[in-house]
Amino acid sequence: MKTHYINENLPYTGEALAPHWIYKNFGILGDAVAAFQGPCDVSIERMVDLEDVLNSDCIYSEKMLHFIIEIFNMDLREGVIMQRHFSSILQHRLNDVLEGHVIERRGDDLFFQQTKKLSVSICTKSVTSILIHTGLNVESANAPVEAAGLTSDLGLSNEQIVSLARSCMRSLVDEWKDIKLATCKVRPVF
Amino acid sequence: MKTHYINENLPYTGEALAPHWIYKNFGILGDAVAAFQGPCDVSIERMVDLEDVLNSDCIYSEKMLHFIIEIFNMDLREGVIMQRHFSSILQHRLNDVLEGHVIERRGDDLFFQQTKKLSVSICTKSVTSILIHTGLNVESANAPVEAAGLTSDLGLSNEQIVSLARSCMRSLVDEWKDIKLATCKVRPVF
Amino acid sequence: MKTHYINENLPYTGEALAPHWIYKNFGILGDAVAAFQGPCDVSIERMVDLEDVLNSDCIYSEKMLHFIIEIFNMDLREGVIMQRHFSSILQHRLNDVLEGHVIERRGDDLFFQQTKKLSVSICTKSVTSILIHTGLNVESANAPVEAAGLTSDLGLSNEQIVSLARSCMRSLVDEWKDIKLATCKVRPVF
Amino acid sequence: MKTHYINENLPYTGEALAPHWIYKNFGILGDAVAAFQGPCDVSIERMVDLEDVLNSDCIYSEKMLHFIIEIFNMDLREGVIMQRHFSSILQHRLNDVLEGHVIERRGDDLFFQQTKKLSVSICTKSVTSILIHTGLNVESANAPVEAAGLTSDLGLSNEQIVSLARSCMRSLVDEWKDIKLATCKVRPVF
Amino acid sequence: MKTHYINENLPYTGEALAPHWIYKNFGILGDAVAAFQGPCDVSIERMVDLEDVLNSDCIYSEKMLHFIIEIFNMDLREGVIMQRHFSSILQHRLNDVLEGHVIERRGDDLFFQQTKKLSVSICTKSVTSILIHTGLNVESANAPVEAAGLTSDLGLSNEQIVSLARSCMRSLVDEWKDIKLATCKVRPVF
Amino acid sequence: MKTHYINENLPYTGEALAPHWIYKNFGILGDAVAAFQGPCDVSIERMVDLEDVLNSDCIYSEKMLHFIIEIFNMDLREGVIMQRHFSSILQHRLNDVLEGHVIERRGDDLFFQQTKKLSVSICTKSVTSILIHTGLNVESANAPVEAAGLTSDLGLSNEQIVSLARSCMRSLVDEWKDIKLATCKVRPVF
Repeated sequence: MKTHYINENLPYTGEALAPHWIYKNFGILGDAVAAFQGPCDVSIERMVDLEDVLNSDCIYSEKMLHFIIEIFNMDLREGVIMQRHFSSILQHRLNDVLEGHVIERRGDDLFFQQTKKLSVSICTKSVTSILIHTGLNVESANAPVEAAGLTSDLGLSNEQIVSLARSCMRSLVDEWKDIKLATCKVRPVF
Repeated sequence: MKTHYINENLPYTGEALAPHWIYKNFGILGDAVAAFQGPCDVSIERMVDLEDVLNSDCIYSEKMLHFIIEIFNMDLREGVIMQRHFSSILQHRLNDVLEGHVIERRGDDLFFQQTKKLSVSICTKSVTSILIHTGLNVESANAPVEAAGLTSDLGLSNEQIVSLARSCMRSLVDEWKDIKLATCKVRPVF
Repeated sequence: MKTHYINENLPYTGEALAPHWIYKNFGILGDAVAAFQGPCDVSIERMVDLEDVLNSDCIYSEKMLHFIIEIFNMDLREGVIMQRHFSSILQHRLNDVLEGHVIERRGDDLFFQQTKKLSVSICTKSVTSILIHTGLNVESANAPVEAAGLTSDLGLSNEQIVSLARSCMRSLVDEWKDIKLATCKVRPVF
Repeated sequence: MKTHYINENLPYTGEALAPHWIYKNFGILGDAVAAFQGPCDVSIERMVDLEDVLNSDCIYSEKMLHFIIEIFNMDLREGVIMQRHFSSILQHRLNDVLEGHVIERRGDDLFFQQTKKLSVSICTKSVTSILIHTGLNVESANAPVEAAGLTSDLGLSNEQIVSLARSCMRSLVDEWKDIKLATCKVRPVF
Repeated sequence: MKTHYINENLPYTGEALAPHWIYKNFGILGDAVAAFQGPCDVSIERMVDLEDVLNSDCIYSEKMLHFIIEIFNMDLREGVIMQRHFSSILQHRLNDVLEGHVIERRGDDLFFQQTKKLSVSICTKSVTSILIHTGLNVESANAPVEAAGLTSDLGLSNEQIVSLARSCMRSLVDEWKDIKLATCKVRPVF
Repeated sequence: MKTHYINENLPYTGEALAPHWIYKNFGILGDAVAAFQGPCDVSIERMVDLEDVLNSDCIYSEKMLHFIIEIFNMDLREGVIMQRHFSSILQHRLNDVLEGHVIERRGDDLFFQQTKKLSVSICTKSVTSILIHTGLNVESANAPVEAAGLTSDLGLSNEQIVSLARSCMRSLVDEWKDIKLATCKVRPVF
C-alpha cells in the first residue's frame, strides 16, 4: 500500500470514490491511500450510502481533510472492517495530538464532546476493489448537523492537520503490511 | 454474535483457542465471544504464533482477563483485521475507564506508559472458523517482559474489570452487527 | 432475513430484480424476501436470462404471485442453489395445500400435470448481492406457453395464495437461519 | 459429478465421511455421489455433528440406504444448502414412488406421518471439499427415536430402493450440472 | 470449457471482451475459448488496461490471430495467472511449430528476436466471469511498436495459423480440465 | 515473495511440503520459494498425490533440484494453476540454457526427448496456504521410470544448476509481483 498527500485544495464531490481514481490521477498503482483538504459537497446522485439517500441526508462541509483508500481483491465485509479500523486509527492519532481522551468513535463516525460529529465515512465496492472515503471536518461552520472541526473546534493548525494526515496514512500502511504478515505465521487449530 | 462472561477462575493454557470451544463448554452456538479471568500459561506445543515459537517466547501471566472470539465462515486475513479492531475497542474502553489517553496500541498489542505490555493476542484459523485470543494482564508480577496489569498497575477493581469485559464484548457484538448491515446498504461504484 | 408481503397489485417488469429494491421501497435493510401479486411483463431489455433473450422468449402472465429475494455477500453459484431450493419449498407447500403430490419441479421450474408450467424463475448477481425472482402464475390465460395458474387451474382463493406466500417466505427465513447455524456446529473431517 | 451404486452390504460407521473416500475406494476422481445399503452405527468419536455429541445422541439403524456426496472447492455454507436441497430431491422422489404427498422435510430431516423420522443427515468440510452423508432407514426396528423405514414402514422392495438410490443420484448430478450452467447465462443487475 | 474457431475475418475492437460474447454470438454456454483472425483496432474508450490509457498507447494491428477466453466464477487474480499460462502455451506451441527456441515470454507478452513484440494480451473481470484477450500479430506492418507477425516475420501459412489456433485452444481445454481434477486428488498437509 | 537457495545437500522426503517449513527453517516469513539439491525418496505415508498412492507409485531420485513454494491466502485451484505456470517457467529457462526447444511440458511434468521424465511436481493445500514441490532430476540413474537428469542427460554443471534455480526463483517472484499489479489496473467489463 502506498500513500500520497495531495498538496492542493481539492473539493470532494464523490467523484473520487471510484476505482483507480488514485492511479488515474496520481499514477500510483495498487493498494493506496491518498489525502487532501477541500470542501465536501456530495450530490444525491453520487451518494453511495443508500441510508443517506433514503433520509435525504446532506453531505456537506466547508472544509474537510479527506482520505481515499483503495484496496484490490477484497470483499465488501472485510473492507467495512478496515474502514472501522481506520476510524480507530484516526481517533487514536487525534487523541495523541490533543493529549487527552477527547474523541469518541461510534461505528465509523468520530465525535467530539459526545455529540459534535467530526467525520463522515463510507466503504463501498467496485468490481475489482473496495473503496473508502473518510472525511474529517476542518471547519464546522454551516454543517448540516451539530459538528466539530479540526481547526474550528479542536484548534489544530494546518501544519498539524497535514502531519496528522501523513501519520494516519503511514499507520494504515504499516498496519496493512503487518496484517498480511500475521496471516503467514500462525499454526491453524483443530 | 453472542457473549458470555464466565464467572469462575479459569486458567488459559491455549486449549480454549480451539473450534467450538465456546459451544462445547457453554452451549452457545454460532459466532461468539467469551471472557474469563485466570492465570495464563501456554506451553510451547500449544503456541500458535510461530514467531513466538521460533523466539522461544514465553506466554505467562499470573492473572489475566481473557477473551476468546470465534467467527465462522471467515478467512484468516479478515479475522486478523477483526483482531486488531478488537484491540482498538479494548484500548478505547480502557481509556474511557481511566479517563485519559494512557493506553497505546501497536498492532495487536496494548501498552501502558509506552513500554509496559498490557496484552497478548493471536488470531488463527480452524477449518470452519477464525479464532482470537486476547488477554489483558490483571497482575503484572513475574511477567516474562516489562508488563502492566489492570489491577496491579492501572488500579482497576475486580468489579471494574468484569464491567470492562462485558462492555467490550457488547461493543464487539454491536459493531459486528453494524458491519454486516453496512454491507447491505451501499451502491457499488464503477 | 426479513419478509414482507406487499398488499397491493404491483406489475413485475424486471425492475424489481435490482440491488436494494426491497430496501429502497420498503425500508427493509439486509437479506430479505418480498412477495406481491400483479401482472408479469418483462421487456427484452430487462431480461437477465440470456437464454430467453437468445430464444426471444416472452415472459408474460396476466397475474402472478411474485417473490423477490436478495441475499448479500453471496456468490452466484450459491445463489442458484438457494433459488432451486426455494423452488422446492414452493413445490412442497403447494403439495401441502393441494393435499396431493401434484406439483413437479424440474430445475427451477414447477409444473402441474406434467406439462403445464406454473412458474418462472431466475437468479442473478449484483456487485454486492444475489437476486432471485420466482413467479407463480395465478391466472394462466394468454400465457405464451402451456401454463397452469394457482387460481385458474389449482383453484386457490386469494386468501390461500396470500397464506401460501407468507408461509413460503417464513420457511425460507427459517431455513436460511438454520443453514447458517449448521455451519457452526460440525467437526471438520480429515 | 459421477455416481456409483455399491452393490454390497456396507456398514456405515462414519469412516466413509472422509475426503477422497469415494476416490480411494472406487477410483472415481472428482465430485461424486455414492450410495449403498447397510447398518448404521456411528460411535461418539466419529460423530461430526457436535449437537449430537453434546446431547449424547445415538446414530443407529439396523439397515439404511446411505448416500455419500463429495464436492470439491466448495465452502461449508454452500455445501449445507446443497445438503438441504438433496433432502428435497429424496423427499420428492419418495413421494413420486409412494404416489402421494406423504413425506415431509424439516431442515435436513425427512419424516413419515409427521413424527416418524426417516433420515439422518450431516454436511461437513474437509480442507479441500465438502462432504455429505444422508441415510434413510430401510428398517426402523430398534431405532433410538420414533422412526420409519423404507421397507418396514413404506413397503418398498429392495429393487425399489436401489432404483430410488440410482434416480436420486442421477437427479443430483443433473441438477449440479444445471446449476453450474445457470451461473454462465445471466446478465448481472445494477 | 469448449472451443470455437471462427472461420471468417472479424475485426477486434474490444467489443468482444465482454461477458457472454461467445454465448451470445455462437451459442456456446459456459467456460469457452474462441479464436478468429482480423485487424485489431481498439479505441481509447474500449481499452481496459488503464496503463495503456494513461500512456495513450495504441492497440493496432493490420491482422492478428485473436483469442477470447471466458471463465465463469473465477476471481481476477486467478484469471491473470491463467492468462500468463495461456501465453506460455502459445509460446510453447509456436516454438514447436518453428522447431526452435525462438519465442520469448515476458509477463503476458511474447517476443521474437528479443525485441519484436508478437502479442497483446489483457485479462479483466466482469461481474460473473473473467475475460482474456490475447492477440498475435499475423502481419507486423504499420504496428505502433517494433513488432513481429506470424506470417510476415515467422513465415507461417494461414493453414499453420489455423492449426496453431486450434491446438492452443485444445491445450487450454485439456489443461483446464486437468487443473480441476488436480484439486480433487491431493491430501492436504498440516 | 522471497527466495532462498539452500547451499547444502538436503534429502527431500516430503517433510518439506508442510506449512511454514521455509519460515521455521530459514526464518523467511510470508510467500516464499526455496531451492536445494539432494536425493528424493518419499514414503507412501508422506505422498500427497493420492493417484500415486493408489498406483503404488514410487517417488525416488538419487539427486534432484528441489523447489518448495508456499503462498498464503490462496485456494487450491489457483495454486494448481501457479504450479503449472512454474513448470512452464522451468521449461523455458531450461530451453534457454540448452539453446534449443528440447524440453516439453505435459501438465505439471517436464520431458526430455519426448519420453524421458525430468520432473515430479505436486500442489496441495494447508489450512492457511498452498504448497508446491517441484523436483528436477539431476541424476537419472535408478529412477523408477524412464528419466532424464540435468547433469546425467542434459549435461549441466552444478554451477549451471544453481544458476538455473536462482533465475527460476527470481522469475517466479517477478511474475507473482507482476500478476498482483495486473489485477489493479484493469477496467472491468459489462
